[in-house]
Amino acid sequence: MPEYKAPLRDIKFVMNEVLESEKHYASLPGGEEATPDMIEAIIQEGAKFCEQVLSPLNAVGDKEGCTWTEDGVKTPAGFKEAYQQYVEGGWPSMTAPAELGGQGLPASIGLVMSEMVGTANWAWGMYPGLSHGCQNTLESHGTPEQKETYLPKLVSGEWTGTMCLTEPHCGSDLGILRTKAEPNADGSYSITGTKIFISAGEHDMAENIIHIVLARLPDAPQGTKGISLFVVPKFLTSGNGEVGERNAVKCGSIEHKMGIHGNSTCVMNFDGAKGYLVGPENRGLNCMFTFMNIARIGTAIQGLGSAELSFQGSLAYARDRLAMRSLSGVKNPDGPADPIIVHPDVRRMLLTQKAFAEGARALIYYAAQQSDLVRYSDDAEVRKEADELLSFLTPIAKAFLTEVGCESTNLGMQVFGGHGFISEWGMEQIVRDARIATIYEGTTGIQALDLLGRKVLMTQGESLKRFTKIVHKFCKEQGESEQLQDLLQPLQAHNKEWGDITMKVGMTAMKNRDEVGAASVDYLMYSGYLVMAYLWAKMAVVAQQQLEQGTSEEAFYTAKLQTARFYFKRLLPRAKAHGEAVLAGADSLMDMPEEHFVF
Amino acid sequence: MPEYKAPLRDIKFVMNEVLESEKHYASLPGGEEATPDMIEAIIQEGAKFCEQVLSPLNAVGDKEGCTWTEDGVKTPAGFKEAYQQYVEGGWPSMTAPAELGGQGLPASIGLVMSEMVGTANWAWGMYPGLSHGCQNTLESHGTPEQKETYLPKLVSGEWTGTMCLTEPHCGSDLGILRTKAEPNADGSYSITGTKIFISAGEHDMAENIIHIVLARLPDAPQGTKGISLFVVPKFLTSGNGEVGERNAVKCGSIEHKMGIHGNSTCVMNFDGAKGYLVGPENRGLNCMFTFMNIARIGTAIQGLGSAELSFQGSLAYARDRLAMRSLSGVKNPDGPADPIIVHPDVRRMLLTQKAFAEGARALIYYAAQQSDLVRYSDDAEVRKEADELLSFLTPIAKAFLTEVGCESTNLGMQVFGGHGFISEWGMEQIVRDARIATIYEGTTGIQALDLLGRKVLMTQGESLKRFTKIVHKFCKEQGESEQLQDLLQPLQAHNKEWGDITMKVGMTAMKNRDEVGAASVDYLMYSGYLVMAYLWAKMAVVAQQQLEQGTSEEAFYTAKLQTARFYFKRLLPRAKAHGEAVLAGADSLMDMPEEHFVF
Repeated sequence: MPEYKAPLRDIKFVMNEVLESEKHYASLPGGEEATPDMIEAIIQEGAKFCEQVLSPLNAVGDKEGCTWTEDGVKTPAGFKEAYQQYVEGGWPSMTAPAELGGQGLPASIGLVMSEMVGTANWAWGMYPGLSHGCQNTLESHGTPEQKETYLPKLVSGEWTGTMCLTEPHCGSDLGILRTKAEPNADGSYSITGTKIFISAGEHDMAENIIHIVLARLPDAPQGTKGISLFVVPKFLTSGNGEVGERNAVKCGSIEHKMGIHGNSTCVMNFDGAKGYLVGPENRGLNCMFTFMNIARIGTAIQGLGSAELSFQGSLAYARDRLAMRSLSGVKNPDGPADPIIVHPDVRRMLLTQKAFAEGARALIYYAAQQSDLVRYSDDAEVRKEADELLSFLTPIAKAFLTEVGCESTNLGMQVFGGHGFISEWGMEQIVRDARIATIYEGTTGIQALDLLGRKVLMTQGESLKRFTKIVHKFCKEQGESEQLQDLLQPLQAHNKEWGDITMKVGMTAMKNRDEVGAASVDYLMYSGYLVMAYLWAKMAVVAQQQLEQGTSEEAFYTAKLQTARFYFKRLLPRAKAHGEAVLAGADSLMDMPEEHFVF
Repeated sequence: MPEYKAPLRDIKFVMNEVLESEKHYASLPGGEEATPDMIEAIIQEGAKFCEQVLSPLNAVGDKEGCTWTEDGVKTPAGFKEAYQQYVEGGWPSMTAPAELGGQGLPASIGLVMSEMVGTANWAWGMYPGLSHGCQNTLESHGTPEQKETYLPKLVSGEWTGTMCLTEPHCGSDLGILRTKAEPNADGSYSITGTKIFISAGEHDMAENIIHIVLARLPDAPQGTKGISLFVVPKFLTSGNGEVGERNAVKCGSIEHKMGIHGNSTCVMNFDGAKGYLVGPENRGLNCMFTFMNIARIGTAIQGLGSAELSFQGSLAYARDRLAMRSLSGVKNPDGPADPIIVHPDVRRMLLTQKAFAEGARALIYYAAQQSDLVRYSDDAEVRKEADELLSFLTPIAKAFLTEVGCESTNLGMQVFGGHGFISEWGMEQIVRDARIATIYEGTTGIQALDLLGRKVLMTQGESLKRFTKIVHKFCKEQGESEQLQDLLQPLQAHNKEWGDITMKVGMTAMKNRDEVGAASVDYLMYSGYLVMAYLWAKMAVVAQQQLEQGTSEEAFYTAKLQTARFYFKRLLPRAKAHGEAVLAGADSLMDMPEEHFVF
């Protein structure tokens, strides 16, 4: 397994230079405390933990996996101790509000730590990661008593949390879920049903586990409008922070799965477990959607992390492994062959991973800034604008980055040749771990419907226009930069085409609703390549300015420009194929009767 | 794991209707025995074996894997017994010449059986599959005595064979291999060295294992021109078919790997093992290349098989699983939701798998016909033409079909949503098993260099022109078919563009050899989409004719046409993005100095 090295220079480049985080944080109430020095210190400390503690446990977690026992699930050797260190280091509480015992730092700084944790060891990172959903739910919709009971321990990390949504017969379509909640005389509810695919649903790393559960009240309306939210602790608690009686929620089994073996994926049986209503009756899905964006950006990080880790692994191998001579002349005359990084096609694979990883970082940090604004800004107009932009970017970041993340992991493996298929090198683990990312937290198909159907067409294209205006303004501002015309011109052209394509799909969709589904995934991928092109152009502009001004880091900025050009020359052309597929219409998908798919 | 059902209707469609195999076989000396009735009987019998015996062992093999012991490698439960049945059924000898005890059927019929075996259980299929390389080597280059000693038992399947090429430090670059062969007084050689990634290198399914080993004679020239071929049996044999003394070749360990767990991937240690020279000294690689095409087509089958199996699995699930309502109106009013096959994006995934699987079948059978001509035709001109066409098609079939095979397996898994990631459904096994196919038997990068460098540019484009002429002629012949203009016109246009792009790459490559490597993989993928487009157009023409003539199988032929249209509308557009990348030039890959890839 490649040893993870946190890409601190690039993290700082994106945060400080491209996204001007100092200005950003200073604009937020209380944000002036997040000075560059302080942030740098935090990130360095976090990097050390991820490199030294989490990274070595990544292969262990895969090999050993989790073990189900009558008394609960055992996590792989070292996971529990690492979590203790994490809690003692105060990491869980970094971005929680001070009044809950948190350190009150902006959420975007938390995402940088999530990136490093998730890249070093995604399966481990899911244990604290899943707590956020639970914590956010209670913060936004819990009663004062619920907040008091659960939040301090969730914030400190002494307890962890889960989200229990999926059932055996439904995942994407939560409207048909069956778990029941019957009211008890004391105001609590008895929750009964089976939930599956509950990540971190049961483990031995924390004293208590707080489940947020979707269930139906008796006589609730059918469909999505009859779902309520409940908080169901593993151990009941008297509210004084001490755990009491064991609740009737048990892990029935854990799944055998392709990857993320270090994380327990649980079947959770609720047998009349005691739970408490969170938020209004029958409004469970709406409550959940309030923080869906940030949960999905959290999953987008897996795309970034897997591309980054795979890149680090394959780059090291490509420098080390000798095979054949460069077609343009021997590069390593003292060796029996040249290192494979001299071969153009190996470079194509490395640069693809690099361009996706760095582009993903820029996109995620950019989205994270919007989420800071939504959460902390005291200007309602700013909050609204940021919220709409974030809503537009979220399905793109989640689906596009996890798709290209998977591609990157496969390229990383390919660089290793036959060795890539062998477990001890660790590259195939990255492929297996990354593969879930395009599925959970809303599949690529679901994200694509969200983007094209809800976000773009339901706003009559307003959400897209908001973004294309940003791109347009950027291109205009940079219009004089002669050196970057090879990036700015195609960006401008694609930006215009994006609107045209959207208009055309919108027109056909008015006649036939299936056109939306037929176009959706290609539309999302098209959009992803364009959003990333914008961010690569932004990075190129910063790099170009630095080079023009004179810098001591000429090599760094030159490499940025080179990667940007690679992206525009070799990856952005794919948008065309997606654009054409978007306009290909639904007929070729819908004409075949279901019974004629095979004979 | 999906239960495999041999797609007999489609196999017959491609063989008999599209490729007119009756005419083809009749044109071969002795081939008139391969009547359609006989072939159908063989294929049906083979299908039964694959469906009933091999398919149920596919998940077993993955779960159990192989076990290394001091005394040899144990294969998963049932593998040995299935192999016995296979041998008793006479399957190994189907296409071997009658004088060696074979049944003398054309090789292309063997490939149909290989397809069914490989789709039902790829890991199992590799045990008999690897024998072919060994058998072909001895048949083409062995001495009469070697043939007599080894071939009858290899043909009958009582013994199996391997190819021992790769060493820890070299795979693609065999020129630097180190295994030594020292002459003994008795005319034999002592072979010493370590070979890795030897598929089926050691197992308990056959009485003896015959290794073909690449090694260097003392004072052999450096590089690829100093490699010789040796035959090294696990058990020495007196030539009377009985096995004797154990030879000094041992399996040191087996690899833990991502997939194909049922096949033993062995480290083979040769400690002065007794071997015999095959073919002339220092001409080992040339000898091997004589049957490289057919070995690579054999691996291309893995692309076909994994797409087919994945399609079968996800189609069944898509018909069964209920989630959400069709956007164009409820389709299953009696259920809580519609089966997901009503959703356009699910259909996109299913049709992609279907179009790739059926397109792959057509391409492989087409290539197999060429290999029949090379092997059996008594017309030297026909042999030469077929050989050149096969050489051109081989890297495309191997790399393109395994790449789109991997894509198909991932789509199949995606259709299952979260369940796709769970082992018990078997879809993730298909992804893992298929992943090796783009690596072994020459990676996609190696195939791409072979195609663009050796096959196309080194022949001044002649090999490409040979194929584009076939396509051109076909388009002209069908030019009047008004109903198929939506296929024929883009095919014709792409066919022309193919030549133009090739010319341009050729020009830049004259100035800078790195342009070949920079363009190669995109060139190969571009070529793959075009070759498959030709075959889909051919299939569409047959279907259209049947529909015009009136047929009792209207649904079958209509579905063929619909799949062809899907291919042209939704998949062929990708060729554009590859074409653009081909012409993007090497600079964006080569400009970055190696030390600047990370900071």
